[in-house]
Amino acid sequence: MEPTVATANKLVFYPLLYVIWSDAVLREQDWKTLQSFIGRAAWLDKESKSDLLKRVNPTHAPDRQEVAHWFRTVKHLVDAGGEYKSLTDLALALAEKQSPPEPTSDTGSEIAKDLQKLEEDLGIVGISAIYRFKEDHPTQTTAYGTETAFSVQGLARFLDGDQAEIIRQVKDLIRTTDFDYVDPGDLTRYREQVLTWCKIVADAGFGKIGYPVAQGGKDDMEAYFSVMETLSYRDLSMVIKFGVQFGLWGMSILSLGTQKHHAKYLPQIGTLELPGCFAMTETNHGSNVRGIETTATYNHAEKTFTIHTPHRLARKEYIGNAALHGRMATVFAKLIIDGTDYGVSAFVVPLRDAEGATLPGIHIEDCGRKMGLNGVDNGLIEFDQVVIPRENMLDRFASVNEQGEFETPIASDNKRFFTMLGTLVGGRIGIPRSAIAASKSGLAIAIRYGDQRRQFGPEGGEEVPILNYRMHQRRLMPLLAKTYAGHFAMQYMTRHFMNRKESEMQELEALAAGLKSYITWNTTATLQECREACGGKGYLSENRIDALKNDTDIYTTFEGDNTVLMQLVAKSRLSAYREQFENMNFFTIVNYVASKTKTSLTEKNPLIVRNTDESHLTDPDFQLNAFEYRANGLVDSAARRMRRLISEGMDPFDAFNVCQHHFVNVGKAFIEKVVLEQFIEAAKTAQKESYGEVLKKLCDLYALHTMEENKGWYLEQGYMEGVKTKAIRKLINQLCWEIRRDAVPLVNAFDIPESCLAAPILTNPTQA
Amino acid sequence: MEPTVATANKLVFYPLLYVIWSDAVLREQDWKTLQSFIGRAAWLDKESKSDLLKRVNPTHAPDRQEVAHWFRTVKHLVDAGGEYKSLTDLALALAEKQSPPEPTSDTGSEIAKDLQKLEEDLGIVGISAIYRFKEDHPTQTTAYGTETAFSVQGLARFLDGDQAEIIRQVKDLIRTTDFDYVDPGDLTRYREQVLTWCKIVADAGFGKIGYPVAQGGKDDMEAYFSVMETLSYRDLSMVIKFGVQFGLWGMSILSLGTQKHHAKYLPQIGTLELPGCFAMTETNHGSNVRGIETTATYNHAEKTFTIHTPHRLARKEYIGNAALHGRMATVFAKLIIDGTDYGVSAFVVPLRDAEGATLPGIHIEDCGRKMGLNGVDNGLIEFDQVVIPRENMLDRFASVNEQGEFETPIASDNKRFFTMLGTLVGGRIGIPRSAIAASKSGLAIAIRYGDQRRQFGPEGGEEVPILNYRMHQRRLMPLLAKTYAGHFAMQYMTRHFMNRKESEMQELEALAAGLKSYITWNTTATLQECREACGGKGYLSENRIDALKNDTDIYTTFEGDNTVLMQLVAKSRLSAYREQFENMNFFTIVNYVASKTKTSLTEKNPLIVRNTDESHLTDPDFQLNAFEYRANGLVDSAARRMRRLISEGMDPFDAFNVCQHHFVNVGKAFIEKVVLEQFIEAAKTAQKESYGEVLKKLCDLYALHTMEENKGWYLEQGYMEGVKTKAIRKLINQLCWEIRRDAVPLVNAFDIPESCLAAPILTNPTQA
Repeated sequence: MEPTVATANKLVFYPLLYVIWSDAVLREQDWKTLQSFIGRAAWLDKESKSDLLKRVNPTHAPDRQEVAHWFRTVKHLVDAGGEYKSLTDLALALAEKQSPPEPTSDTGSEIAKDLQKLEEDLGIVGISAIYRFKEDHPTQTTAYGTETAFSVQGLARFLDGDQAEIIRQVKDLIRTTDFDYVDPGDLTRYREQVLTWCKIVADAGFGKIGYPVAQGGKDDMEAYFSVMETLSYRDLSMVIKFGVQFGLWGMSILSLGTQKHHAKYLPQIGTLELPGCFAMTETNHGSNVRGIETTATYNHAEKTFTIHTPHRLARKEYIGNAALHGRMATVFAKLIIDGTDYGVSAFVVPLRDAEGATLPGIHIEDCGRKMGLNGVDNGLIEFDQVVIPRENMLDRFASVNEQGEFETPIASDNKRFFTMLGTLVGGRIGIPRSAIAASKSGLAIAIRYGDQRRQFGPEGGEEVPILNYRMHQRRLMPLLAKTYAGHFAMQYMTRHFMNRKESEMQELEALAAGLKSYITWNTTATLQECREACGGKGYLSENRIDALKNDTDIYTTFEGDNTVLMQLVAKSRLSAYREQFENMNFFTIVNYVASKTKTSLTEKNPLIVRNTDESHLTDPDFQLNAFEYRANGLVDSAARRMRRLISEGMDPFDAFNVCQHHFVNVGKAFIEKVVLEQFIEAAKTAQKESYGEVLKKLCDLYALHTMEENKGWYLEQGYMEGVKTKAIRKLINQLCWEIRRDAVPLVNAFDIPESCLAAPILTNPTQA
Repeated sequence: MEPTVATANKLVFYPLLYVIWSDAVLREQDWKTLQSFIGRAAWLDKESKSDLLKRVNPTHAPDRQEVAHWFRTVKHLVDAGGEYKSLTDLALALAEKQSPPEPTSDTGSEIAKDLQKLEEDLGIVGISAIYRFKEDHPTQTTAYGTETAFSVQGLARFLDGDQAEIIRQVKDLIRTTDFDYVDPGDLTRYREQVLTWCKIVADAGFGKIGYPVAQGGKDDMEAYFSVMETLSYRDLSMVIKFGVQFGLWGMSILSLGTQKHHAKYLPQIGTLELPGCFAMTETNHGSNVRGIETTATYNHAEKTFTIHTPHRLARKEYIGNAALHGRMATVFAKLIIDGTDYGVSAFVVPLRDAEGATLPGIHIEDCGRKMGLNGVDNGLIEFDQVVIPRENMLDRFASVNEQGEFETPIASDNKRFFTMLGTLVGGRIGIPRSAIAASKSGLAIAIRYGDQRRQFGPEGGEEVPILNYRMHQRRLMPLLAKTYAGHFAMQYMTRHFMNRKESEMQELEALAAGLKSYITWNTTATLQECREACGGKGYLSENRIDALKNDTDIYTTFEGDNTVLMQLVAKSRLSAYREQFENMNFFTIVNYVASKTKTSLTEKNPLIVRNTDESHLTDPDFQLNAFEYRANGLVDSAARRMRRLISEGMDPFDAFNVCQHHFVNVGKAFIEKVVLEQFIEAAKTAQKESYGEVLKKLCDLYALHTMEENKGWYLEQGYMEGVKTKAIRKLINQLCWEIRRDAVPLVNAFDIPESCLAAPILTNPTQA
């Protein structure tokens, strides 16, 4: 049967009808739009109109055969080739195929115009709708994926640097089946397993590696940190137990004791024959360690100290190794001689006998289950008049002489206390290095999963790896950049620590406190994002993010609460700021500040605040300037604000409290500046290598993303204008897209043993 | 012995010497400053200078007796009363007390001048140093604390509204010892306990409360949500198991089945005699549910369906109740009749016999340990040609008739699929309501702990409750405001759901998706902050934040990944945006957009962009305008961007991908606007009550803090200038300080049973 005008014109509607009836989201309004369109169309005869109106009645669906017929008809046309950009194109092509009678060209153009408007009114994206009739639908998003454009091994070597050999040794050890993961549900079993692991690590000589050669060690603290970081690819309870035993317990003997203590304890500590604790924190005094209340009362007649816990809230709390395995502890207590308080000192106190039974006067309570690190036996220790011999005082910084008199080379109790703490700064290096390793593990899992996992896709096309989605990139790529940034920063911190000078100790301590806070906060955020980025898979313990996240969650509290530490950093910055003004009187300062403000205004010249060139945004000089400007600007405004509040008569303690939030930002901004400097340095060193380009991109992403996080501040200050912050956002998106291609090689360059990642979601998906 | 000039002048130095030697942070530079000062001081004789120089030699500390003497001398002066603002004041007063010979007034003023400069150079804050010699040191920060200025019970009643009675009943149930917490370590025991709890809850009639009266229920979905939320104060595994059984499993029967299914299954589901599952998600298809691959093949000869899992990655995954207790499941599968795929339908499939043994063809694997919710037995289900009778098809939206033909009132497979999902929107209400309860519990613990816990304090003063620290307030108060905001928003959402009209379903679904995402993200962030705010105590499982955080962590993935859902919200916004332009052609739109931009420019008049009055910032009209401006601005720019990219020839799928991050912000901004509207409404309703003022403050904090989070955007757009964003920051700080006083009463108004909080850190500190 030859088609009539009516059927010909109806054929015109096939593409539209198919799309309408196969679409899920057509609203009442859309049906009305369709109906009024049909009413208006001058090129449809009455019969066609009535027929069509029936077909666009939402309550009278066509049968599936009819829908299938529309589909086949249109698909036949599309399969035959040709460029169609909209349903109107298809409609006209279908109309043309019909003959006779063909619509006049006038009618044709009228139909085209009407249909185009309809398509627009309905919000149909023509080009997308066409793909419903095609077999495949190639898009940029679908076609994109991992490419390895640089030497992964080369980058891995670059990351390890001169620690490559010790890192290799530790990896070889932990990839053995001795270290297979265990379920953390049964605390008893898990804790025993972790002890066993620590023994294996000690047997391999890694525990004592930082101790003096005389006590069996290699006097290599740098290696010690590398061991701690590398072990973190495996189980973090093991890392913390390792850190408690060989770091806190052993290093307190080394740093606070003298030769006699080193000789007596270190050899057995280094082999884990003598498990011990570091008993500083008390329930009532966590961050404010100076306030601890445990007493060590000297008895000259017996030449002994009596260690005592005055009340329950002065018990030592959260003490690692205490609940089960610790046989001794370094205990921090206030030294009392003849009723005089000589401030905090440290003492070696036996806790258990060789069989593990607690000694008289020692009461230990298990801290029980924790959010993570359940392989570590944390406990509360209470001392009930425990007597220890005089030689158990760790006497490097203070001692009681033969006459029963207090002796110290550091007269101020405060200063001595901070000097003691200063020697323990290593703990604030070990924790963030372990945190970096945990971030690397999390990112390796989430990024490799995102590279494999496909979900959704273009109309008619195949599903897309989720890492190709811009939002997924936005979630993970900046964190990858931050983790690389943290890696280089901690290498710098470690080198700085290894080559420390007495005069730099305050600066070093502030840097360690700040980096510890910055990096552990980033790790918490990173692992949270990794969990969510892996969806339900990320929630299953077998895929490791659970343990990584929960074990490291306490790192933001360990070795000092991050918020408190960032304020210390800020105080040290204010102190350095004050140093600039040394020998200036108040009016000179005011003048100086004024002239500085003028300089700042010059820095803010319109050419720069509006410069959106990519070459400018990726210029390390610009990036550093922006970070420095913020670091200096914040310390400057904090100092002025303090000065103003105090001069207005506010109590300095209150004034400091008012500025507390400001101070935390002072600390952060300073640390970010240090981190960027080190990243730029590393990228520069690597620039001629195959991985030079990708490191530079990561560094740019770190720099720009950090600026974006603080764009409110930059805009407030007029350091940037909106056009520039928008250009930064755009460039970040672009960098995320580009780095996504390198993301899998970039996490592979962490060179984490596969047995450590051990996430089933990373194995061949067909086995998942 | 009469003092000489020299000793008199040395006495002048006592305050300074004491402060110097009791201070910990004096740097090399400071010693030099001191030495050069002594050298310069014309009013010191040679002997005094030489004596003093010895005393400020950093390597020759004075003995402790001497330091104690300085202290006693100065303290004696201070105790005698008098206003001292600096060490110089003290020094001069000490000098005056000496006689003869008294320094001439000339010398006195010279001394004063020199000393003042020294104090400044050393950066000593005089007023603060003075407190070292005082018994106490009152400050604003120390003196501040909790006050209850409103009716806590009244606010509690206001929060509960007309659900008070059912909430009370559930609280009475869960505060019994039957619900005492168990250790989550042993999965078997924990899961059995959770099942037992669910049975007790079912026995009390709460499981079936939402079912029709005919099936034993009360047809009260609002009460169902209140039960789910209130149970969340206790154990969240119980809540999720409750939700799986009575919500997902039961409601799928109710919403997707017909009368015969209701009669057959609901009575037994409501009593938990028939535990069941909701088997939708597959390994390969989580977010993209439409892509599931399980098949239900119709066999007309037998009038049966064969349910089959084509490959391992098409197994149903994470299915609650599957690993142990589920006896049946609602299974989503593609219906195949005669080789034709009719899209996704739902079927009731038996899994286990009455003894709990899995039936032939059913293979179930345990998902094992998870980050949280370990009391829920999630499993993987594989169907190996499992045959079920025809009547097991849940046939409300599609069926196979007696002739073996497919029948449906909704012709489009897509549309039918989304209609089916739409009926399950309740899940997206239950989860955020549970999340709100978890946030409330976390905040109750962290805020009450912060109110009791003291750490640090002013020089010479008592330790301060950590909640008095501005930073601590900055961490917790905005989250408290967000939680209150979320509470009112979910009440609105629930009311909206209860009174839903068919025509509003799409809007309702978008709102539910958006609120679910917004609130669950907030809960994750809130509990993370609560953990950190409680330090080590927050890490101990006994203090509950562990379970709260880890159990709710999956809420951001449950019922749809938040990032995916926010994009759905954005799409719905774009669609609504399009609606505004209905019947406009392209050029009209361009003109409209241009005129709108002009309006925006008018909105941005300088009087407003720089208005920093508190009355303006707390004006609900301004706040709403700011939120609306952002919500509209983002949807507008997203629409333009999409249009531009597509008109430049980009594939729409790629274009959507490019804008994905933008779209997520569109969704968030819209939801924030809805949340603010509801909060403002609630505050207005309460304005005459005793708690009216504090609710208004919380609402202001929510509004201003959300603006601050987005201040970069506002500044970029020129909607605000720097002076205004700074004023907002200042007002937020002020609100945090003020609300801190009400914070404990505000969390008490949540009226969470103490036995549910159960955190030892909340009990009397002496028992902690």
